[in-house]
Amino acid sequence: MPMHDTDLSRFSGVIPPVIIPLKGDRSLDRDAFRVSIDRMIDAGVTGLFFLGSSGEVVFLTDEQRLEVIEVALDIVAGRVPVLVGIIDMETMRVIDQAKRVSRYPIDALVATAPFYALGGPHENERHFRQIREHTDLPLFAYDLPVSVHTKLDPNMLIRLGKDGVIQGVKDSSGDDVTFRWLVLENEDAGHPLQLLSGHEVVVDGALLGGADGSVPGLANIDPHAYVEQWNAAKAGDWGRVTKIQDHLARLMMMTRKVTATVGFGAGVGAFKTALWQMGIFNTNQMREPVQALTGDDVRSIVQVLRKQGMVPKDSLINFDWDC
Amino acid sequence: MPMHDTDLSRFSGVIPPVIIPLKGDRSLDRDAFRVSIDRMIDAGVTGLFFLGSSGEVVFLTDEQRLEVIEVALDIVAGRVPVLVGIIDMETMRVIDQAKRVSRYPIDALVATAPFYALGGPHENERHFRQIREHTDLPLFAYDLPVSVHTKLDPNMLIRLGKDGVIQGVKDSSGDDVTFRWLVLENEDAGHPLQLLSGHEVVVDGALLGGADGSVPGLANIDPHAYVEQWNAAKAGDWGRVTKIQDHLARLMMMTRKVTATVGFGAGVGAFKTALWQMGIFNTNQMREPVQALTGDDVRSIVQVLRKQGMVPKDSLINFDWDC
Amino acid sequence: MPMHDTDLSRFSGVIPPVIIPLKGDRSLDRDAFRVSIDRMIDAGVTGLFFLGSSGEVVFLTDEQRLEVIEVALDIVAGRVPVLVGIIDMETMRVIDQAKRVSRYPIDALVATAPFYALGGPHENERHFRQIREHTDLPLFAYDLPVSVHTKLDPNMLIRLGKDGVIQGVKDSSGDDVTFRWLVLENEDAGHPLQLLSGHEVVVDGALLGGADGSVPGLANIDPHAYVEQWNAAKAGDWGRVTKIQDHLARLMMMTRKVTATVGFGAGVGAFKTALWQMGIFNTNQMREPVQALTGDDVRSIVQVLRKQGMVPKDSLINFDWDC
Amino acid sequence: MPMHDTDLSRFSGVIPPVIIPLKGDRSLDRDAFRVSIDRMIDAGVTGLFFLGSSGEVVFLTDEQRLEVIEVALDIVAGRVPVLVGIIDMETMRVIDQAKRVSRYPIDALVATAPFYALGGPHENERHFRQIREHTDLPLFAYDLPVSVHTKLDPNMLIRLGKDGVIQGVKDSSGDDVTFRWLVLENEDAGHPLQLLSGHEVVVDGALLGGADGSVPGLANIDPHAYVEQWNAAKAGDWGRVTKIQDHLARLMMMTRKVTATVGFGAGVGAFKTALWQMGIFNTNQMREPVQALTGDDVRSIVQVLRKQGMVPKDSLINFDWDC
Repeated sequence: MPMHDTDLSRFSGVIPPVIIPLKGDRSLDRDAFRVSIDRMIDAGVTGLFFLGSSGEVVFLTDEQRLEVIEVALDIVAGRVPVLVGIIDMETMRVIDQAKRVSRYPIDALVATAPFYALGGPHENERHFRQIREHTDLPLFAYDLPVSVHTKLDPNMLIRLGKDGVIQGVKDSSGDDVTFRWLVLENEDAGHPLQLLSGHEVVVDGALLGGADGSVPGLANIDPHAYVEQWNAAKAGDWGRVTKIQDHLARLMMMTRKVTATVGFGAGVGAFKTALWQMGIFNTNQMREPVQALTGDDVRSIVQVLRKQGMVPKDSLINFDWDC
Repeated sequence: MPMHDTDLSRFSGVIPPVIIPLKGDRSLDRDAFRVSIDRMIDAGVTGLFFLGSSGEVVFLTDEQRLEVIEVALDIVAGRVPVLVGIIDMETMRVIDQAKRVSRYPIDALVATAPFYALGGPHENERHFRQIREHTDLPLFAYDLPVSVHTKLDPNMLIRLGKDGVIQGVKDSSGDDVTFRWLVLENEDAGHPLQLLSGHEVVVDGALLGGADGSVPGLANIDPHAYVEQWNAAKAGDWGRVTKIQDHLARLMMMTRKVTATVGFGAGVGAFKTALWQMGIFNTNQMREPVQALTGDDVRSIVQVLRKQGMVPKDSLINFDWDC
Repeated sequence: MPMHDTDLSRFSGVIPPVIIPLKGDRSLDRDAFRVSIDRMIDAGVTGLFFLGSSGEVVFLTDEQRLEVIEVALDIVAGRVPVLVGIIDMETMRVIDQAKRVSRYPIDALVATAPFYALGGPHENERHFRQIREHTDLPLFAYDLPVSVHTKLDPNMLIRLGKDGVIQGVKDSSGDDVTFRWLVLENEDAGHPLQLLSGHEVVVDGALLGGADGSVPGLANIDPHAYVEQWNAAKAGDWGRVTKIQDHLARLMMMTRKVTATVGFGAGVGAFKTALWQMGIFNTNQMREPVQALTGDDVRSIVQVLRKQGMVPKDSLINFDWDC
Repeated sequence: MPMHDTDLSRFSGVIPPVIIPLKGDRSLDRDAFRVSIDRMIDAGVTGLFFLGSSGEVVFLTDEQRLEVIEVALDIVAGRVPVLVGIIDMETMRVIDQAKRVSRYPIDALVATAPFYALGGPHENERHFRQIREHTDLPLFAYDLPVSVHTKLDPNMLIRLGKDGVIQGVKDSSGDDVTFRWLVLENEDAGHPLQLLSGHEVVVDGALLGGADGSVPGLANIDPHAYVEQWNAAKAGDWGRVTKIQDHLARLMMMTRKVTATVGFGAGVGAFKTALWQMGIFNTNQMREPVQALTGDDVRSIVQVLRKQGMVPKDSLINFDWDC
């Protein structure tokens, strides 16, 4: 079905993928969720992305996904647009997820290429076209080859944009060369797509190159810096943009300090640990089968936070919850 | 919870992953399903695996998965053990699938490593241990790196076997070297695991090397040959085993003839096309976003079937359903 | 042996990897080589890199490599620093290459991680340390995972820089996140390394983020634009930097138009075709086993050149050499 | 040039890739080389492959390669056919290697697909055809995707075989499914190719499936077992073939015990350590940048040797050379 009438330029600026706080028993910590969301909105973020990869979407049962949306919408209360991930393996399951979340007053859907079963370009394109048949919400293609092992073809993305199938791209492919071409070809096509970069460490280059915004997980930790960076970019103050980026890149080094595990447990694990040590989350608990970071990993992350001025120099490590 | 008391040696021999027949409208074709299942059981297969990768598990909504199980159990009616795939992205979702399918009188569960989110060995091991906490059914680890991008560590598999967490492995990794080591170490450990090979083209080598059986998709096309091969292997008639394998390897070449697409659409697409041309299925319809094979791809598959004596030399291509 | 005394800041700005012109018989076209090198130096490039990946290094016999160096040095005549690739499979072979090329008055060596044999981080680090034992020239580590299937660890690079083993990095890894961290950690360490980006499409972001320069293959086609971009970056005129980058990114689209082959034959094949159509090269001949582009591939490349103003609108395709 | 007249069936049976013994100073240990080669020939191997991957080919300078050939030919003295690897990056370099080694009375050449530069199927096929233009020796295609990151297309291999370009394949791809198809299609084509398996752990399955022989690195350690296995296979005694394979698979576990490094250093490092501990080599020295195994890695390898009866139960670890 055709997309309902909406102003796509709303989907620009800083749209953090929201990290989920848990209690020790791995249930959703609604209080911490409110604190963290309010903090990001108060800092001036221009949207929030729930149920993304760092929002634990693949770790949640369908029931738990709906709980996250319900609570999130109650907290956000219309202050910023809400994008929701409908991540699942193949088309009919993704459409099922789309139907479920579309009962709620959300602003856009975010879907990856199909995964698990091997396919080719025909299947990828038909996948997005089939999703469009079942929703009138704005639809973002989520380019995440590290998880789905398919890089979305930029020619296909432009074609889907022109045809009204998708309205934007969240690019977490790490392929900044192709992203640059996508920006240029999107301009040539009349800008049908809102192009958002998912790489928090190099947002400055993405904005300089013409991105419409970013989806930085690290903005959960320092939303003010990303918002200030976005404003500096709009003002053309690239020296300022890059100086802020240097701070953020150093802050992101927390994810490189983790020794206990790799991947999600190290990346989102570090973010949760930072938010816990900053007093925003009450624990750094993770979903099964991932375990919360402990000991030296926590200490290394606190050192990064101190160095970047995110916690007081003399902050003590809070081991109040028994992880 | 500990596994309930059962004789694991039942899970040996030839256990085809069942290919699903669809009507033109992509709904389950129950009549063709019955024909195909009966044909395999009559041929002497020793078990059936539903909701595996070639059983379209990731293409089905949760509701559709249950429909497949219900209909399948009704048809099988206890004649052979039924294994069921509980494929989903991360632990809690897999456990959710386990709970749903365990309402039915099935004989074993089959689960892959977690996928989509990046993890490491700790997460993989904890994943299977967590699943065991929630089921008392025999549990098979499904080693399928081509889909989940993790190769299961053989040391971990033996450890999980000894601890009663898993009771078998369906190896579709294509790593026959590691599979051989797994066979030897499984013997040393007292054979806690039933080891099944998923590579239909080289079942002879797997059986010679000590595999407990196979899970060949191609057995949907020619179940008699795999059953005869299994019996020849038990009798030590390796010349016969290999001669049958040569026939099956040539039959499998049908999957290499497809030009329209790659991966699932070519492989399972060829199988469905063969079953349709052999008069067992009524269509070669596929689940979205995959399209049914047509034209020259169909003709090439029929040529392979003819050459291997699976259809009469003068069989006409049946284009009765409009794919 | 320790590096001889030299000013490393010379290795900054725009250092094109030089594309090699061939005659129809695949011998070096010395006249065209002179025209192209002079054109780049006259445009203001700050160095030239010979025998890099796009400089055909792995396609040349050892004898042919020395011919390229001899002719190149004769043409350059000291006008800019000359960097030379010593690409070979493992350490002792690379050292052999280093010895051979060090007979000539060159300014720096460029070496990748070892490849073909599988190794780990210990081997990579020892590799560079062993090369240092046999040369007193500045040594650049060439990070090219697409060819050598190893990503150089940034912690190792900083360590090798501090220890005087390497003096710079040519980063063609496409991993701009890690490159950004490398820039920051290089600053913290006192800037032991000259950090050069090899991605011609996003040089603007690399310079904004603190790169010391770039090694853009596309600068063979449009050296003036890269030089102007470098000067604009030094002047802090980021609007100008990016506008030039947009032109260059569009020019680079020529490599995406090729349909006859992939990889080197498409990328360097497109560059040679452009230089031929611009009248700088006399052919677009390639080294065995790669074939020169023909027909529609040539026409598509000319269209890109026209659109970006690199050839007159009414230029005729020159098919004077029979490729 | 066309291949000179020769009986290709000579290239069958057990053809070990010869491991190179070094002195502590990393020079070739000619005495140990003679002991090891004589031991393999006396055991009944049917050929020897020098300068393969495990024969250190990519670690040797061109001069060192010729030294290996000269010494090897002097020791072999015509007792078995000698195959020689001409491994290098791209076609003209490989042809250069072919010319160099063809000065010696060797029996066949072994070449991989081109590597380092990215290419496609056209380049791969033209590569082998170009090599044929420059040699009249039998030529084996070496399928080693783990090193060259290209899997050789079986259709191309059959085509090259029919055209007299290549005379055999050494398959180290680990893709036993495609190898089986290759065997069948080679039969259909009149057996133009000698098909050798490089996977020492599953030679039984390869022989059962129709391989013409194997190229097992492990045959340096236990040549008698592989020769006995080959004879049992020819006699159709598959029970015996597999029992021997079980022993060899357990012996190969030595490569899994290494903790100091990965890849070549672990695999060939383990082989050298075994040969040293068995008294055949005088050291377990490795080529730069790889380091010899020490300490617990050596002890673990000796345990495997003891368990498989390759060293006396009470053998002491010989630490006479200071590695």
